[in-house]
Formats: sequence, structure tokens, C-alpha cells
Amino acid sequence: MANKLRIIPLGGLGEVGKNMMVLEYGKNIILIDAGIMFPENDMLGIDFIIPDFNYLMDKKDIVRGIILTHGHEDHVGALPYVLQEIKAPIYATKLTRGLAEVKLKENHLLDEAELNTIQAGDNIALGPFRIEFFHVCHSIPDGVGLAIETPVGLVVHSGDFKFDYTPVDGKPPDFAKLAELEGRGILVLLSDSTNAERPGFTSSERVIDDAFDQVFQKAKGRIIVGTFASLISRIQQVVNAAVRHERKVAITGYSMVENVRMAQELGYLSIPPGVLINSDDIDKLPRHKVVIIATGTQGEPSSALARMSIGRHRRIKVVSDDTIVISAHAIPGNEEMINRTINRLFQQGADVVYEKIAPVHVSGHGSQEDQKLLFSLTKPKYFVPIHGELRHLTMHARTAQEMGIPASNTLVVENGYILEFDGESGQIGERVPGGYVYVDGSGVGDVGPAVMRDREILASAGFVVAVIRLDEKTGQAAGRPEIISRGFVYMRDSAELIERAQDKLLEVLEKSGRGRAGIGDKVRDELGKLFYEETKRRPMIMPVILEV
Amino acid sequence: MANKLRIIPLGGLGEVGKNMMVLEYGKNIILIDAGIMFPENDMLGIDFIIPDFNYLMDKKDIVRGIILTHGHEDHVGALPYVLQEIKAPIYATKLTRGLAEVKLKENHLLDEAELNTIQAGDNIALGPFRIEFFHVCHSIPDGVGLAIETPVGLVVHSGDFKFDYTPVDGKPPDFAKLAELEGRGILVLLSDSTNAERPGFTSSERVIDDAFDQVFQKAKGRIIVGTFASLISRIQQVVNAAVRHERKVAITGYSMVENVRMAQELGYLSIPPGVLINSDDIDKLPRHKVVIIATGTQGEPSSALARMSIGRHRRIKVVSDDTIVISAHAIPGNEEMINRTINRLFQQGADVVYEKIAPVHVSGHGSQEDQKLLFSLTKPKYFVPIHGELRHLTMHARTAQEMGIPASNTLVVENGYILEFDGESGQIGERVPGGYVYVDGSGVGDVGPAVMRDREILASAGFVVAVIRLDEKTGQAAGRPEIISRGFVYMRDSAELIERAQDKLLEVLEKSGRGRAGIGDKVRDELGKLFYEETKRRPMIMPVILEV
Repeated sequence: MANKLRIIPLGGLGEVGKNMMVLEYGKNIILIDAGIMFPENDMLGIDFIIPDFNYLMDKKDIVRGIILTHGHEDHVGALPYVLQEIKAPIYATKLTRGLAEVKLKENHLLDEAELNTIQAGDNIALGPFRIEFFHVCHSIPDGVGLAIETPVGLVVHSGDFKFDYTPVDGKPPDFAKLAELEGRGILVLLSDSTNAERPGFTSSERVIDDAFDQVFQKAKGRIIVGTFASLISRIQQVVNAAVRHERKVAITGYSMVENVRMAQELGYLSIPPGVLINSDDIDKLPRHKVVIIATGTQGEPSSALARMSIGRHRRIKVVSDDTIVISAHAIPGNEEMINRTINRLFQQGADVVYEKIAPVHVSGHGSQEDQKLLFSLTKPKYFVPIHGELRHLTMHARTAQEMGIPASNTLVVENGYILEFDGESGQIGERVPGGYVYVDGSGVGDVGPAVMRDREILASAGFVVAVIRLDEKTGQAAGRPEIISRGFVYMRDSAELIERAQDKLLEVLEKSGRGRAGIGDKVRDELGKLFYEETKRRPMIMPVILEV
Repeated sequence: MANKLRIIPLGGLGEVGKNMMVLEYGKNIILIDAGIMFPENDMLGIDFIIPDFNYLMDKKDIVRGIILTHGHEDHVGALPYVLQEIKAPIYATKLTRGLAEVKLKENHLLDEAELNTIQAGDNIALGPFRIEFFHVCHSIPDGVGLAIETPVGLVVHSGDFKFDYTPVDGKPPDFAKLAELEGRGILVLLSDSTNAERPGFTSSERVIDDAFDQVFQKAKGRIIVGTFASLISRIQQVVNAAVRHERKVAITGYSMVENVRMAQELGYLSIPPGVLINSDDIDKLPRHKVVIIATGTQGEPSSALARMSIGRHRRIKVVSDDTIVISAHAIPGNEEMINRTINRLFQQGADVVYEKIAPVHVSGHGSQEDQKLLFSLTKPKYFVPIHGELRHLTMHARTAQEMGIPASNTLVVENGYILEFDGESGQIGERVPGGYVYVDGSGVGDVGPAVMRDREILASAGFVVAVIRLDEKTGQAAGRPEIISRGFVYMRDSAELIERAQDKLLEVLEKSGRGRAGIGDKVRDELGKLFYEETKRRPMIMPVILEV
């Protein structure tokens, strides 16, 4: 093992290597990114998911550094959890560092963290790894790809990227660096697969400017733009459009305000003086002079847009000359909530402009032709598709093969698999145990399959508690059992069913005689049968047996 | 009211008029369609939704007939529920009737139903309504639109439609009839808005043939095609491709087998002798000679495809030379489950072909240009967009206005609103109370907001039952309270938390002295606070107080 490079994407069944990747050589590890995943609809009660980094727990001391490719949540959001266990220095560009600091501050971990600012073009050495950062275009400024010289060869990590020739921040992709890396010979390319299903090139962020201009020209009243708090480039574009159309901009929502403040301080957002207004002052201006930037593009019930859509926003009441722009994509699983928000905003009388009907959003990830261009520029010996579900990785691998990379050198793995490279060959090794770690409230990892399964049953048919008192002398029922239930049937209309359940319980108790043994199971069986027959539902049944 | 025509789409916040529409004139009602809706992800435990037809309950006797436009679930699935209350004759084309009969038979209602077969071109009179059926193209054969002569004018209902010049069943749209209706002067057009967000024309079903040919040419082993059991045209296309490529076809799944048998009997599916094989015989043929048609395109956990994807299908074990074709679209809200199924099928080593990467599905609903063509052909005075959420209706209304229908004559309403027409004008009236009726197991409408809210709380953080025994003489705690919980924390690792909760309970009891009054609320408050502080979760708390 000493002379092999290990590359391990950590996490569960979701996007591979998106949230955290391990590079290991001998007694040296570097981590790439520390992000969170959003729960799927059937992960009940879960706030978010962090990668399971149990693999690192007995290797904490050999983690030489944590490298962040860019500042989005799915790449930096798990830092507070990782830093509690692993005290390694962090390397990030200025904006990425700023966003990470906002996160660490919220968790009172900023003082403990060792943060280092790097920039594209820089070079750092961490153990046997020499890491060079190169600029990539994405929907946030200051994203980097990584060129990592390892003892077995050069590893290139694309970060999240697309080839944007006219990016909002004026910094195009670094073709010269990619060409230079190709000249040195690339052993492995790890590259972003998010849009591997999409033919063509991804459009430049610049196309949004035209879409915004159209919206701004037509809008008679306020314009409310919903986007992600970390989409700094998009916020810049809204500000630019506001300036072009002589409107003032109000920012709402804590994370949005914080990020804008920070990005401005660091020089990543350029807002002319006098353009920003306090969101308390919105109503002091004529409606056609106002743009509001808000969060809530995923229809999250507590978000600004969702609250506006049901008329429950503290400050902003949607009226019929408002124009609402949803400038973001749907994270899979959120479509229903987003559609519902759009419907409700229409219901409030507003005009709603969204991705399906106007190009007010473009993806930050390269499509098949971007991916082919990267293969053409880098000509790697091995290719590992990352940042995607298995279906994306599979498509990306097919593209790689079209581009001449042999199938045997295209390594498609799920999270947890160890990829091993010596100077000669690369192969897929064992799988590291682990997967998701659920974060629910303040609990990290304590909600596992058992609790989740219970929540599923409760969600689908509620519960019934049967409180049975047994006379401790006779072993017989002392009074009629009590039935408590929620989420199963509407109790007020179910007196008859409950009575029948009580009768059934008395019958069970009588039959089972004196002994308490096995009564719980019998109660569960018999009540379960009764309820299923009567309602075709299967509530969770909990007998409580008390001797009195 | 006697001289006004009322048109009322029934249902909740979802697609307007999709599941049921009421036409009322004086003491006469006809119903158009009787379909179900699938629950959204946050409608916990709900099997499906039927329209709330409470409006009809004191008008049962004046319902002259139920007209079905085509045989899909969202248009006929609620028939068993409607027929239990409203004994009206049903009018449907042969295939639609066949599919409705399958449904009624399952519910033992076939004998009671009065079913009448009509065909495109037929004319029936129901009270003051004269209804003419005309052929429309959709993803199922035998769909019809309706031309309804009413005392106030001609109402045209498009049904679900697209303009398909090369339909699978060889029956193109009936342009002559639409032209003739236009000549008579159309008062109101009610038309399908499903794809109102999509520019262009919807492709012909025929494009799928080419996509299937490509898949069939490339496939080395079995081909497994997933589709909806009611997509009869698609099943025909799979059979045709199988015949062209010399493969045999096995049908799996009860509803699929039933529908195929019925459609064959009625002459809507043409399968050459010897092509169909029993699904028990799949393994007797070489793999490259087999096509399997299965359900499960929405990732439903109990479906054939989902079971195959996790290796739990009784008969069919996915192997690496299998090709799996998902020939259906994602119903919004199902994307996550579908993606998961696709990922897992890739994981099993199969090749998976789906809408995003190949044209193996096309929509059955017209896009903006189809919609414009219908406006051009029909030139209605009033337009009511139906079959869509508010966002679709709004887009469709915009298209109508582009086509010259005045905004004042474009009536966009949600379900429940009464549209009133006299000979002169049309307007939006009051809203009929009602919305969704949830079907959960054998319960119809008994699960309402209260039960749903409880399920939400239970889903997100489970429950805690605190069983407190009070000495009936002293009013003091008789022993330590018992704490029972599921879905909240992992109980085995939470002994300390539970003990603290018991201590807290004893403290509450001591403070509150003898009286039982208000103890329940105090217990709820104090335990709620404790649990939130410790876990940042809010389980449902149920005190059970017993005097012993």
C-alpha cells in the first residue's frame, strides 16, 4: 500500500465525490471539499446529510489539509462537522474562504479553524502532494480545479465547472494551464458529471443578462428575484440589471444579507453606491424603482418566496403588478414544492418568470460538449467521473470512451470505493464501510435505519397506544383498556372502531389467562388485524401493560 | 340561474378540471370524466385523491350522464367512488369503456353500472345537452373531444390531445369536424393546458419507433420496457418493435396483463399469434429473443421495475446484458424515486435508456403550437384553459391572447369556481366549497387536515408517550413515569435523556400538587422544552395519566 495512491469518494448512494474526496498516499491524506447533501423526500425529519468520514477516524493525524474547490453548500457545508473531529488546515480562495467563515462563525468554530487563502496559480505542498490551483468557471466566482502531483503521477480534479467564455466576473477558463498539464501527462482526471445527460454546451451565464433585460423592461411594478444565497454571480447580474434599469436593490434573508456583505467586502460583488437599500425602506420607493432579492427558489416552506406565496411574509405582500423571477434550478425532489410556490404566486396575481418559460437560469455545470472539450485538452490516461449519481457517471464514462479513453481506464465507482493507482495501473479496490450520516436537529448520526423506519410507519398511518391495566393479583384486566391514537383515524369520528378495539383487547386478555408473557405481541397482532380489516391501514401499535 | 349555463371544474389545488367537470343548466347536469389524482410527497399515507363532488350530493337526481373522454386513470379512476353516490349512465368509447370496466370489476360495481358505448361521430342527447364526440389523438387510442350544444351556445371540450399526424393507431385528428364546429360558432373552448409551458409542437408518437429500433438493434440480451399499464399505444409500439426484431413479448404485472387482454379482445392491440409468451417462460428462450413489458416507471417501491432494481423481483433478475427502457415521463414529485431506480438498475449492471438520453417517450399532450392550431381551427368566443396547474393555465391564457382572444374572454379559474354563461356573456362566479378527498386504505375522506398534521409531526420527529400513575388518594406520582417513544431518538442510546425526562415529570407532578387539572398541558410543555433543548427536535408528546 505504501507505494499506491488511494482516491476515495466518501458518502452514500447520492452524488459521488461531491461532498468529500480522500487522497491518500502512505501516511498522508488530503481531503477535497467538505459539503452537505440535502435529504430526499423519504428521509423523514432529516435536516441534511454529511458524508460518513469514519474512514478517517484513526487517521486524523495524517490529514495534511482540507482543500475547498468553491463556496457552495455541497462543498463547504459540512466543515463544522469535519473540523470537530479533524484539526487540519483549510485551503481556499478568498471568496470560498469568506463563505466558509460565515459557516464556521455560525457554529462558533472560527477561532479553532486554521484557514489559508490561496489563489489560482498558487502551489502548495502537503506531504507528498504538490497541489496547484487553476481557475474554473462555475456559477460562483473564485472556483478552482486542482492539479495534484503525487508520487505515482499527476491527478487533475475539475471541481464544479463549465467552459464559460463570457463569465460574469470576466475570468475565462484557464486553457493555457490545462494545456500545460496535458503536456506534463495526466494520470487521472476526476471530472464533474452533473450534466453528463445533456447534449451540447452549457450556455454562458451571460445569456441571463438578456433574459433579465426583457423582464426588467416589461415589469410595471416591483421585481422580486429568487435565487440561492451562494449564487454570488447571479446576485451581481441582478444588481447590474437594476443599475441598467434604474432600480434600487433590497436584499432579504439572513444568509443572503451575510453573503452579500462578505462578497462585497472581499471585492467579489461590485455594487455602485446608493443602489442597495435597506429592506425596511422598500415601501418608501415607487414600486417600479425596486428590485428585491430573496431566497426560497426550492419552495422551502419557511423561505421568503414560499411565505410570500401564501401571503405570510412579514414585510412583503405580493400584489398584482409584481414580477417574480425564479432564477435557479430545481434540485431533484423539490419540483413539487417549487411548482406549488409558482402556482400560489400566480394565484396572488403576480407575474412569475421561471426557467421553463424564460432563460432566467443557466446551469453552472458543463454539458457533454464541455466534457468532451476537457477530455480533448487534458488527454488523461485514467478517467474517474465524479459529482453525479450513477446515471450521470455512466453517461460521462460513455462520453469518455467516445473520446478515446479505453473502457478499462474509465473507472466508475460509487461512494466508498477505493481507487488504487500505482505508477503502472489503476484499479477499483474494496469498499470502505459507511454511507450517509443524517443530521437531525442537534443529532449527528444518531438517526439510523430503525428510527427512520419508525418514522415511515408513523407517517403513513400514525400510531395506536393501548394502555392495559392488569390486576396484579388476578392477572385479569382492571377496567377497560385505554386507546390513544394520532395520525391513524380521525378519533372523534371513530368511537365505534375504538370500542371494538377495546373489546378485542379484553378478549385477548381473557384468553391469555394469568400470564403476562407474550401479551404484548398478541395485542399487536390482534389489534393490527382488526385495524387492517376495518381501515386497510397499518398504524404502529404500542401496548403499554401496567400492573395495578 | 335557469337560463344560465354553469361550468364547474371540481377538485383541489391541483390540475384544474382534469378529474371531473360539471356542466349544469337548469335542472340538468352532465359530468365529464371521473378521475383520480396521485398524492404529493407531503400528503403522508394517502393512496390517491378523488375530486370532492359534494356539490352534487343534493343534485344526484339531475345528473343525466357521465361522459368519459379517454381511459387514463386521471379520467376514469374515480368512477367506483362516484358511482357509489351517483347512479347515472356512463358514456364512453369502446376502449375507454373496457378500461373503466376493469376498474369497476375490481370494485364489484360492474353489475350496477349502466355503461353505453359511443364512438367518434356519435351524437347523444342528455337533457338540454346534445353531445357530439369527435376523435382526438393522445397517448391512448379512442380518446374523444366533446362538442356540446347547450341552450346558450356551443361548448367544445378538447379532452387530452395533441395533433399527431402519424398516430400509432392510424387515426389522425378530425380537422373536418373542428372546422365544421367553428362554422357553427363556438361559445366556449375548454382545452388541455398540460404542455402550455412548452414551445413548439409535440412530436408524433411515431418518433418512438425509431428510438426503439436503435435500442433493439444494439441490445445484446433481454429488453425490459417499463411503461404505464394504460399506455396502450406504447404497448403496441413495443410489440411492433419486437416483431420487427424477431423477439417474443412477455407481459408482467396484473394491471398490464388485464389491460393487454382487454385491448386485444376489443381490437385496440394487434399482436400477431405466437408473439406473446407467458412470463413464466421467459427463461426458456435465449435472452436476445425476449422483450418484457413491465410497470414501475415512477419508481413506486412495490412495482416490478423497482423490485428488479434492488434484486427483489420474484421472476426477473437483472443481469449485465439486459437493456431497460423507461418509456414514460416523470409525474412531478416522482423524479427522485425514478432517478433512484435508474441508478440502481445501472448498479445491477444493466444498460438503462430513459427520456433524458433518448426519445423513448413523447408527451401525449399538445405544446404551444398545437394549442395555437386548435385556437386557429376553432376560433372560440370564450376560452377556459383546463387540465393543468395554475402556471399552465396562465401560460395557455397568454397563448390564447396572442391568438386574438381578448383577455376579458379568457377565464382562468381554479377548481371549484363556477363559470356562468348566458347567451351574451361569460363570467367567473362564486367558489363551490370543497377540494380534495383523500383516499387512504378503505377510508374515503376521513383523513383530513388534523390527521395529516399529526402525520407530519410524527414523520419529522416521532412521538413520546409519558405514562404517569397518580395515587388516587394522595394525587402524587405512584412510581416512576414510563416513557415510550418511537421515531424520535434511538431509544437504546438514549437512556440518559429518558431518565432526565422522567425526573422532569416527577418535578412537574410535585409542583402541581394534588390536582390533575392542567397536568397534561404542563407535561407537554415541559417535556417539549427539555427535548428541544437536548435534541432540537419536536416530537409529538402524549401524556397518559392514570389514577391507581
